[in-house]
Amino acid sequence: MTDKHPPSYAHTDEDMVKMEVNLDDTPGEWLGYVMELLFASGANDVFYAPIYMKKNRPGIMLQLLCSQEKLSEMKKILLEETTTLGIRYYPLTVYRAERDFIKVGTKWGEITVKRGFYEGKAVQQAPEYEECRQIAETYHVPLKQVYEEVWKALD
Amino acid sequence: MTDKHPPSYAHTDEDMVKMEVNLDDTPGEWLGYVMELLFASGANDVFYAPIYMKKNRPGIMLQLLCSQEKLSEMKKILLEETTTLGIRYYPLTVYRAERDFIKVGTKWGEITVKRGFYEGKAVQQAPEYEECRQIAETYHVPLKQVYEEVWKALD
Amino acid sequence: MTDKHPPSYAHTDEDMVKMEVNLDDTPGEWLGYVMELLFASGANDVFYAPIYMKKNRPGIMLQLLCSQEKLSEMKKILLEETTTLGIRYYPLTVYRAERDFIKVGTKWGEITVKRGFYEGKAVQQAPEYEECRQIAETYHVPLKQVYEEVWKALD
Amino acid sequence: MTDKHPPSYAHTDEDMVKMEVNLDDTPGEWLGYVMELLFASGANDVFYAPIYMKKNRPGIMLQLLCSQEKLSEMKKILLEETTTLGIRYYPLTVYRAERDFIKVGTKWGEITVKRGFYEGKAVQQAPEYEECRQIAETYHVPLKQVYEEVWKALD
Amino acid sequence: MTDKHPPSYAHTDEDMVKMEVNLDDTPGEWLGYVMELLFASGANDVFYAPIYMKKNRPGIMLQLLCSQEKLSEMKKILLEETTTLGIRYYPLTVYRAERDFIKVGTKWGEITVKRGFYEGKAVQQAPEYEECRQIAETYHVPLKQVYEEVWKALD
Amino acid sequence: MTDKHPPSYAHTDEDMVKMEVNLDDTPGEWLGYVMELLFASGANDVFYAPIYMKKNRPGIMLQLLCSQEKLSEMKKILLEETTTLGIRYYPLTVYRAERDFIKVGTKWGEITVKRGFYEGKAVQQAPEYEECRQIAETYHVPLKQVYEEVWKALD
Repeated sequence: MTDKHPPSYAHTDEDMVKMEVNLDDTPGEWLGYVMELLFASGANDVFYAPIYMKKNRPGIMLQLLCSQEKLSEMKKILLEETTTLGIRYYPLTVYRAERDFIKVGTKWGEITVKRGFYEGKAVQQAPEYEECRQIAETYHVPLKQVYEEVWKALD
Repeated sequence: MTDKHPPSYAHTDEDMVKMEVNLDDTPGEWLGYVMELLFASGANDVFYAPIYMKKNRPGIMLQLLCSQEKLSEMKKILLEETTTLGIRYYPLTVYRAERDFIKVGTKWGEITVKRGFYEGKAVQQAPEYEECRQIAETYHVPLKQVYEEVWKALD
Repeated sequence: MTDKHPPSYAHTDEDMVKMEVNLDDTPGEWLGYVMELLFASGANDVFYAPIYMKKNRPGIMLQLLCSQEKLSEMKKILLEETTTLGIRYYPLTVYRAERDFIKVGTKWGEITVKRGFYEGKAVQQAPEYEECRQIAETYHVPLKQVYEEVWKALD
Repeated sequence: MTDKHPPSYAHTDEDMVKMEVNLDDTPGEWLGYVMELLFASGANDVFYAPIYMKKNRPGIMLQLLCSQEKLSEMKKILLEETTTLGIRYYPLTVYRAERDFIKVGTKWGEITVKRGFYEGKAVQQAPEYEECRQIAETYHVPLKQVYEEVWKALD
Repeated sequence: MTDKHPPSYAHTDEDMVKMEVNLDDTPGEWLGYVMELLFASGANDVFYAPIYMKKNRPGIMLQLLCSQEKLSEMKKILLEETTTLGIRYYPLTVYRAERDFIKVGTKWGEITVKRGFYEGKAVQQAPEYEECRQIAETYHVPLKQVYEEVWKALD
Repeated sequence: MTDKHPPSYAHTDEDMVKMEVNLDDTPGEWLGYVMELLFASGANDVFYAPIYMKKNRPGIMLQLLCSQEKLSEMKKILLEETTTLGIRYYPLTVYRAERDFIKVGTKWGEITVKRGFYEGKAVQQAPEYEECRQIAETYHVPLKQVYEEVWKALD
C-alpha cells in the first residue's frame, strides 16, 4: 500500500452536488479537453450522455459531481470553456464503500489492487488500470492478459 | 379485473429515491442479470443509459427508483453484483395516475387492458404485454396483430 | 387515394448507397439543418447515431441512404455544410414492400392510412402523421387520441 | 437589440423543477410532436435520452425543465400525449449567466449575436441560429459560411 | 465438453448478410419480443442502436446478421412484427476464431469455459453465462463471485 | 506548412474496409486502451457506438476503418485485447477531399489551420486541435478563446 493509495472507511457524503449542462453547439472536439480540465480542477466525476434536443439537434448532456465548495470554480470553467449560458444543479448524497489497496505479485512485478468492502467483507477487487497499462506497454502483452494474471493471483 | 391487477387511485409519492451508479468496468453480460435482481428485490424501476467516461471509456449509468426503505437493500446488491464503490442518490416525488384494469374480448380470448385516468378521464389504454405475447406464441400470430385486435375492440 | 400518395409494388432496389460521415467538430445546432437539406436534395433517409471518438470526444455518425446518381450531390452538401473532409460509402440492396393508401373516416374527417403488404396480405397499417398532427392542432385533441380513433376505424 | 431579445442579468433561479418520464411504448413518431407541444406550453427545456429498459426494451427518458408553477400543466400534457402513468420530479437550482444581444454586420445584412457574460467579461458569443438559417436559405450559401462570417466580424 | 458445445476451427464465412431497419413508430415494448423471435428463427446476431431521425424523432436501428439463405425468413418477420416497409442489406465477411470448451472445477461444481484461439494460442477464456447464472441463483451468491472463482481456477 | 502536414489531393480510395465487433463482456476500462492501440497500429479511424444486445445487455459496437492490407493486424489486436471471437468486415469506398495546411498568426504565435477543398474552393477551415490545446494550457486561456482568435484571423 503506497501513500498515494490511502485506505478509507465507508461513509456517506452529504456535501455533494450534481451539475448538468445541455450542449447543442459545443464541438465534440472541445469536450475531451473540458472533461480533463474539470477533473484537474477537482470534479469528483465528469461524464457525457447523448441527448436529443429541439430542432432535431443531437446534443450532449455534460454531468459532473463535485463538493458544494467547488461549485463556483466548476461554474467558471463551464461558462468559459463550453457554449452554455445556463447551469443547473441539485444536492445529492454519495455513499462511498470502505476501500483499501493491496499488492499482488505477477511475473511482471507487483500490481496494486483496490478492494472494496461491504459490512466487513471484500466485495470488489480491481487491479489498478494505469499500472496494468504500463505493464502491457512495457512487456508488449495484451492488457487483458495482465488483468487475468492478477485475477488468478488473488485469493 | 383480477387480484393481481388491483386498481389504484392517483397519488403523489414523496417517499421515493433515485439511485445512480456509473460503471466503466462491469461487463455488459452481468448487467442484464443485475437488472432482474434489482427488480426482484423491490426496485420500482431500473434502467441503463450509455455515457462517455474519462480515459475514452464507454460506460453505463445504472439508474434505479425505489422507496426510501429499500435503499440499503439496493445498496447491498449494487456493491456485491457490480464493480462500483460509490453510489449516489437523491429524493424525488413520483406522481402516479389513477389506473384500473378491464377485460377486452378478442378472437383468441380475453386480454387485460390497463387504463390510466387524468381528472376522471381515461387518457391511456394499454394491452398487457405478457398476455399479448402469450397469445402471439400460442396462436403463431404476430404480436403486432394482437395489439391491433385489442385497439379495435376498445371504445 | 390521392395523387401525392401513389401505390407501389414490392421491389428490390439494387441501386442504393449508404454514405457515412463521422463528425467530432460540427456543432449539433447545424445538424438539424443539414438533415433537412439532405432530405430536400433527394436523400431517401438521413439519421444520426451517437459515437465515442478518439481523445474522449462525443461525436455523431451521420448516415444517409440515396441512389447512386445522387452520390455527388450529397457529397457536395456534406463537404460544404459539415466539417468533414472524408466520406465513406458502400452499395446496398433495399427491399421495399408493396404499399397503398386508403382513407379512413373519423369524427374529424378522413385520414389517410398507409398500408404495407407482404405476399398479398396487409401486414402494416399506419395513419399519416402529418394529417393526424394537423387534426390534433386544429381540434385541440391529443395526437394519441387521433391515432387511436384511426386504429379503431380500421378493419 | 430588439424587443424580442431583452438582455438579462445573471441570477440564480431556485424555482425550477426537472420532470422525468420513462417511455417504452410511445412510438418515436409522437415524440417530436410532444417536444414541440411542451415547449409551446412553457417548458424551459425538453430533451430525450436513449435508455435500456426491462425485457430488452429500448426506451426513451423524456426530461423537461420548468418552473414550479408549470408543473401541473406539464403533467397534463405528459399524461394525455405519451403513454406514461408515472411522472417523477425534483427541484433544482438554475444559474443563468448575464446575457445581451448585439448586431453584427455581414454582406447579407445584420445578424444578432447573443453574448454571455461571466463576472463582467464576455465569455460566449453565438450568432442567432434562426437568422443565420434564413440567410443561408435566402442566399443559397452554406449555413457554416454564415456562421464563419459572423465570427470574423466579431472583435 | 458436451455435445451442445462442439469445438470449431477458425474460418472465414463469406455467406453472411447484415440487414438494417430504421424504426420510428414501433413501440419499444415490441422490440424485446422481436429480438427473441429473430434469434429463435436463426439470426446469428440481433441488436439495436439509438438513432436520431427526421422530425425530431428518437428512433431505433435494428441490425441483424444472418446467412444468405435466411434472408427471406428474416424479411417476413421484420415486415410482420415491426412497422417497417423498407429493409436494407449488404453482404459481409465474418471471421470466426477457433474455439473449444473446457470444464473448470469450482466449489459449486464444474463450469464450462469457452476458449478462443488465435494462431494456436488461447487468447480468450469466458465462463458460460447461463451456467454461472444458475449457480448464482441456486447458491445465493453474487454472479460476480462465480466468475471470479472460475477466473482463479483457470491456468 | 510543415513536413508533418503534407497537403493532399482529392481522391477516392477503393482499398478500405470497415471492421465491426460487438462487445458485451469487455469492460469499458479496456476499451479506451484498445482504441489507442488500434490507432497506433495503423487504423484510419476507430469509434464505439452504444448498442442493445440480447439478454438485456448494454453493449458496444467497435467500428474501425483500415486499408485491406491492415486487416490481419487489426484482427490480431481485436482477438487479443477484446473478448470477441467473431469479427465482421466489408469493403467500402472513401472519398477524401483535397486538403492543405496554412499558418495563421495570433497573439500567442502561429497556429496551423487545415483547409479542405471542394472543386477548388475552400469549404472547410479548422485550427489544429493539439496546437490550440497547447496554447490554452501554456497561456491559461480557454480553449474556446484560442479557436475564436483563429477564426477571426482567417479571411
